[in-house]
Amino acid sequence: MPRRIILDCDPGHDDAIALLLAAGSPEIDLVAVTTVAGNQTLEKVTRNALAVGTIARIEDVPFAAGAERPLVREQVVAPEYHGESGLDGPELPAPTVALDARHAVDLIVETIMAAAPGEITLVPTGALTNLALAVRREPRIAERVREVVWMGGAAHGGNLSPVAEYNAAIDPEAVRIVLEAGWPVVMVGLDLTHQALADRSVLDAIAAVDGAPAAFTLELLEFFRGTYREQGFEWPPVHDVCAVAYVVDPGCMTVRSAPIAVELHGELTTGQTVVDLRHPAPASCVTSVALGLDAPRMWGHVVDALARLA
Amino acid sequence: MPRRIILDCDPGHDDAIALLLAAGSPEIDLVAVTTVAGNQTLEKVTRNALAVGTIARIEDVPFAAGAERPLVREQVVAPEYHGESGLDGPELPAPTVALDARHAVDLIVETIMAAAPGEITLVPTGALTNLALAVRREPRIAERVREVVWMGGAAHGGNLSPVAEYNAAIDPEAVRIVLEAGWPVVMVGLDLTHQALADRSVLDAIAAVDGAPAAFTLELLEFFRGTYREQGFEWPPVHDVCAVAYVVDPGCMTVRSAPIAVELHGELTTGQTVVDLRHPAPASCVTSVALGLDAPRMWGHVVDALARLA
Amino acid sequence: MPRRIILDCDPGHDDAIALLLAAGSPEIDLVAVTTVAGNQTLEKVTRNALAVGTIARIEDVPFAAGAERPLVREQVVAPEYHGESGLDGPELPAPTVALDARHAVDLIVETIMAAAPGEITLVPTGALTNLALAVRREPRIAERVREVVWMGGAAHGGNLSPVAEYNAAIDPEAVRIVLEAGWPVVMVGLDLTHQALADRSVLDAIAAVDGAPAAFTLELLEFFRGTYREQGFEWPPVHDVCAVAYVVDPGCMTVRSAPIAVELHGELTTGQTVVDLRHPAPASCVTSVALGLDAPRMWGHVVDALARLA
Amino acid sequence: MPRRIILDCDPGHDDAIALLLAAGSPEIDLVAVTTVAGNQTLEKVTRNALAVGTIARIEDVPFAAGAERPLVREQVVAPEYHGESGLDGPELPAPTVALDARHAVDLIVETIMAAAPGEITLVPTGALTNLALAVRREPRIAERVREVVWMGGAAHGGNLSPVAEYNAAIDPEAVRIVLEAGWPVVMVGLDLTHQALADRSVLDAIAAVDGAPAAFTLELLEFFRGTYREQGFEWPPVHDVCAVAYVVDPGCMTVRSAPIAVELHGELTTGQTVVDLRHPAPASCVTSVALGLDAPRMWGHVVDALARLA
Ligand SMILES: [Ca+2]
Ligand SMILES: [Ca+2]
Ligand SMILES: [Ca+2]
Ligand SMILES: [Ca+2]
Repeated sequence: MPRRIILDCDPGHDDAIALLLAAGSPEIDLVAVTTVAGNQTLEKVTRNALAVGTIARIEDVPFAAGAERPLVREQVVAPEYHGESGLDGPELPAPTVALDARHAVDLIVETIMAAAPGEITLVPTGALTNLALAVRREPRIAERVREVVWMGGAAHGGNLSPVAEYNAAIDPEAVRIVLEAGWPVVMVGLDLTHQALADRSVLDAIAAVDGAPAAFTLELLEFFRGTYREQGFEWPPVHDVCAVAYVVDPGCMTVRSAPIAVELHGELTTGQTVVDLRHPAPASCVTSVALGLDAPRMWGHVVDALARLA
Repeated sequence: MPRRIILDCDPGHDDAIALLLAAGSPEIDLVAVTTVAGNQTLEKVTRNALAVGTIARIEDVPFAAGAERPLVREQVVAPEYHGESGLDGPELPAPTVALDARHAVDLIVETIMAAAPGEITLVPTGALTNLALAVRREPRIAERVREVVWMGGAAHGGNLSPVAEYNAAIDPEAVRIVLEAGWPVVMVGLDLTHQALADRSVLDAIAAVDGAPAAFTLELLEFFRGTYREQGFEWPPVHDVCAVAYVVDPGCMTVRSAPIAVELHGELTTGQTVVDLRHPAPASCVTSVALGLDAPRMWGHVVDALARLA
Repeated sequence: MPRRIILDCDPGHDDAIALLLAAGSPEIDLVAVTTVAGNQTLEKVTRNALAVGTIARIEDVPFAAGAERPLVREQVVAPEYHGESGLDGPELPAPTVALDARHAVDLIVETIMAAAPGEITLVPTGALTNLALAVRREPRIAERVREVVWMGGAAHGGNLSPVAEYNAAIDPEAVRIVLEAGWPVVMVGLDLTHQALADRSVLDAIAAVDGAPAAFTLELLEFFRGTYREQGFEWPPVHDVCAVAYVVDPGCMTVRSAPIAVELHGELTTGQTVVDLRHPAPASCVTSVALGLDAPRMWGHVVDALARLA
Repeated sequence: MPRRIILDCDPGHDDAIALLLAAGSPEIDLVAVTTVAGNQTLEKVTRNALAVGTIARIEDVPFAAGAERPLVREQVVAPEYHGESGLDGPELPAPTVALDARHAVDLIVETIMAAAPGEITLVPTGALTNLALAVRREPRIAERVREVVWMGGAAHGGNLSPVAEYNAAIDPEAVRIVLEAGWPVVMVGLDLTHQALADRSVLDAIAAVDGAPAAFTLELLEFFRGTYREQGFEWPPVHDVCAVAYVVDPGCMTVRSAPIAVELHGELTTGQTVVDLRHPAPASCVTSVALGLDAPRMWGHVVDALARLA
C-alpha cells in the first residue's frame, strides 16, 4: 500500500526532481503539493511547482501556495544556487496544472484531519514555515501525522553558514516548532545529502531514459552542477530527492534515533540543528537523523521513476 | 460613528472589565471577541470570556477561541494574579453566549478581509499569538487594519521580569511579528497602566452604579486588589481597560510616536519592548507608546459604560 | 578623615571635571589615577589625564595607563561627544605630571593589597575593563575594597542604544565581572546624571571662580554643550562628576538598594543594566542605584573645589 | 633545537601525561608550567601539577598557579572524569617541586617578553583563562609568541554538550580572546583526540617501560579508562597529550588551515568552536584545526618519553 504524502517544497532544482520521484514512484500516493518561500519567492517557487507538475502530468493532486516569508525572520532567497527564477536552466512549460484556491496551511490541516490517524506523511523539502503554522493553527494534526520526513539541517557542518543548513537557517523558529510538535521527525540533512551526488554515472543513467521528465531532469542537473561547482563541489548534492527517497525505500539509508534541537539565539550558530550523538537516544525520542546512504540504490529509484513518467 | 473593534483577550480580571467597557461604550462597535492562552489556559479564558459576555448580555457578536499556546516558547500562566480559574473572585454565570465554531485566527482574517480597508481596529489585551498567526496566514490584513491598540509591553520597567511585561514576555516572537507587520501599533503598556489604579475613589464610583455588571466588576476588583497587594501594590493597575479606553477616548492619554522593537535573544531581557525615546521618531514610524493618563477621565468612561449595561 | 580613592577614568570632558573635583575636595584623598580606553583610545585618554593633572597641579599621585581595549568586544570610541582628542575644546598644557611605569591593573591591585581592608574606594568613570582584570588577577581585592562607585549604566533608558549606557555597553563582560565580584557597587547612572546638567546657572557660577582650573572647566563645558546639543540636550549632563560627588557628599543623592545585572546576549539590549526595582532588595544585595540628585548642592561642591584649586 | 614551551594545564589525567611527554621529549624545552582552574579547582590542579613534576623529577622549571575561575562565567569542574582530586587513581607523592610565587599570568607575560620574538610556544591544555588575561594585560605578547597549540574545541561534535568541548565551553570568552589575538593557533580538538585512544596496545607498551613515570601513567590510564567507559567509550581518549605531541612531532597529525570562531550567545551552542571547513581558508587565516592522527606514531613518542624519564 503506497504511502500518502504531502510534499511541501520550494522548487528549486532538487525539489523539482524530488517531485518527479514522488510522482513516478508506486510506493507513493501524492495527495497534495504545497509551496513555501525559500529558494526563491513564493510566487516563483509556486510557478515552478506548477511547471514541474505539468511536465510530470500530475493530475487530480491539489497544488497550493503557502507562506510567503519565514515565521519571524526576514526572508532569504538563494539565486546563487537556483538562479533568478528559482529553477534556472531548462525552459519551463506554461503550467496546465491549476493552483488550488486554498492556502497551503489550510490544505495541510484539512487533508490531515480528513484522513485516518497515521495515514499522512509530511515531506517538507524547504523551510518549515507551513508546517509550523499548520500545527499552531490546528494542534491536533501533531498526533494524526504518521511522520515528518524533512530535508534540512545537519548533524555536522552547514552550507548557509559553517554550521547551519539552508532550510533550517532561513526559518529556525519553524524548525523548533516542528521538532517539538511531538510527531516523529526524520531529519534527512546534509550528512546524508552530501552523499547524494549527481555524478557522471547518475547523469549517464538519466540520459539513457526516454521522455520529457528525464530530459528536464538532466537540464536541471547540468545547471545545478554549475552553481555547485562554484561552491567547491565537483558534483552537486541533490538534497531534496533524499527525503522522498526515504519514503520510497527507507532501507537505502541508515537512520539513527537522536535528540535534535535547533539553536535560535546564537551569534554564529543560529539555525544549526544540534544533534546529540554522544549517547544512545532515550526510548522517548521521536527525532532521528539520516547518516548513511546507499547512493546507487537511491539513484536507481530516481531513474525508475523518470522512466515511469516518460 | 463608532469604531469597529475586535477584542482579542485572555480574561483575566482586567480583560473582563475591558470587555465590559467595550460593550457599554457607544464609541465602540464590538464586532468580535477572540481568546488566546495567557492569563490561563485557552479553555479557561474562553469560558471566562463567554461568562463575561453573558453578564454584559452581548448578543450577535461572535466569540471564538484561538491559540492554545505561544508561537515558539513554552506556555506560561498567571494564577498568582488571576487565580486558578483565571477569573477568581466572583461567581461566574453559566454562559448563554455560544462559542463560534471558527478558529479565532480565521475569524480575525475573515472579518478584516470582509470589512472596508481601515475599518477594523484590533485591540489585543493578551499575548499577540492570534494576531501574529493571522498576519502570517493572510499578509494582506496588515494594510487593511486601521490600527492595533495593544495592552502590553513597557518603555520602562516590567512585571514578569525587571524589564519585561507579561503579555510581551510570554510570546515575544508574536510581538516582533506584530510590531513589524506595518500596521499602526499603539502600545498601551505598563508606563500607562500603572497609572490606571482602581483606588478607593474608583471602587466607590463603581459601587454607586446599579446592576449586575457593576457588581461583578466590583468583585473582580476586590480580588485583583488582593493579588496585587501581594506584589507590593496598594491598589491594582487595571491594565487591559486602558487599551479599550484609548479607542473610546484617545484624548485621555498622551501618546508619543517612537520606534518599538522587542528583544528575543537576551538572557535577562527577552520579551522587553525596547522603545527609543532618545530622539523624535522618524516620520515613517508607525509605532507609538502611551505614556500619560488622565485617570479620572478614563474611569469616568468605565463607570458610564457599566451604567449603560445595567 | 578623607576617603582614599582610585579614580579610573577615560578623559573625556566629564572625567576631567570629575578629576578636578576629586583633586579639589578635602573629603577625598586621591591615591591614584588610572586610565582605560573608552571615550578615546588609551593613548589619548592617558595624555588627557596627565594634562588635567597638570592643570590641577596634582603631585605625588601616580597616573598609570591600563587596558587599551575592552575585555571581549571590539573597541568603541566617542568622538561625537568628546572630539578627536577625547578632550576637544580647551588647549591642553604639555603634561608636567609623569606617567607611572606600572600597568593600571597592577597599580590598582598593589594599592588595594597594601592598604588596610576597607580603606580604598574605587571610582571608575569609564569602562570597567581595568577593574575586571584586577579582580580576576587578584581575587582578594574584592573583599578589601570599601566600595565601587561607578558612573555607568542606567535603570531606565540609555544613550549608546535605547536602553544601554555608553560605559556599560562598550565592555559589558567587565560590568558583569564587577557587579558579581561581591564588593559593594553604587551605580551612578543616567537616571542620576541626566539630572546633573551644566545649565546657565552652573556656567555662571564657574565663570565667577578665579584660576586656570575653573577657566579650563568652562571651556570643557562649552564644548560639551555643543556636542550634546546635537543629541537633543539643551544643557549637557556632566556624568562622571556625579560619581566623585557621591564620595564627597553621599547626602546629595538618593540611592536605592536594588539587584543589578547586565545583559550580555541580547540583540537589542546588550550592555543594558537590568535593575530590579519591582520589590525591596533582599538584605544580601550589595548593589545600589542612584536615582535622585540635589543638583545645586552637587554643583556647589564643584565650584568649591575649583576655587580651592585656583 | 628544542621548542621552548609553556605548558598551561589543569591536571587532570591527560594533562599529567602531557606533562610527562613534555618533560621526557628532547624536542621540547619546558620553560614553565602554569595552572588554571578547570578539571578541578585551582588548588587541586596546582597540587597535582607539582606532584607530577615531582614524579618526573622536573627541576629548574617554574610552576605557577593562575586563574581560579573562568573570565566571565561560573566555574565548572569535572569530577565525573577526573575524580574529586582531579587526579584520582594513583597515590600522589608529596611534592618536592616548589610553587613559584608569581601569578601564572605574570609568569607567562614575563617569560614571553624576556624571550626573543617567536621563541615561546604556548601549549594550553585546559581553559584559556590565563592566556586571555595575559594578552589583555600585555597585548604585545600576541606578536612575540610563536604559536598557541591548544587542546580544546571541536569541529564536529562535543562532549560537555552535543556540540561543545569541555575546555572551550567552561570559558568561552577566553577562547574568543585567544582566537582573535592574532597569534597562530592550532586547535587540537576532539576531532583529533578521539583518535588518541589508550587502547590495549598502548597500555601494554607503557607497561613494558621501567620506572615510576610509566607506572604512574599506567595507573592514570586505568582510572581514566573507567570513567570514560561510563561515558560510552571502550578506551579513553587522552586529549591533552595530543597538543604536546603536535609540538614534538607535527608530522604525526594532519592539520588544516580554517577560520575558527567561538559561539558566546547560543542557548544550545555556547562554547562551540565554529570551524569553517566549507572552503579553503584565506591566506590571512592564522587558525588551524587538527583533523587526522597517526596514533601509533604519537603513542611511540609517549613511550619513548616515559622511558627517558625512568
Ligand atoms: Ca528545497
Ligand atoms: Ca489580558
Ligand atoms: Ca568617562
Ligand atoms: Ca586538561
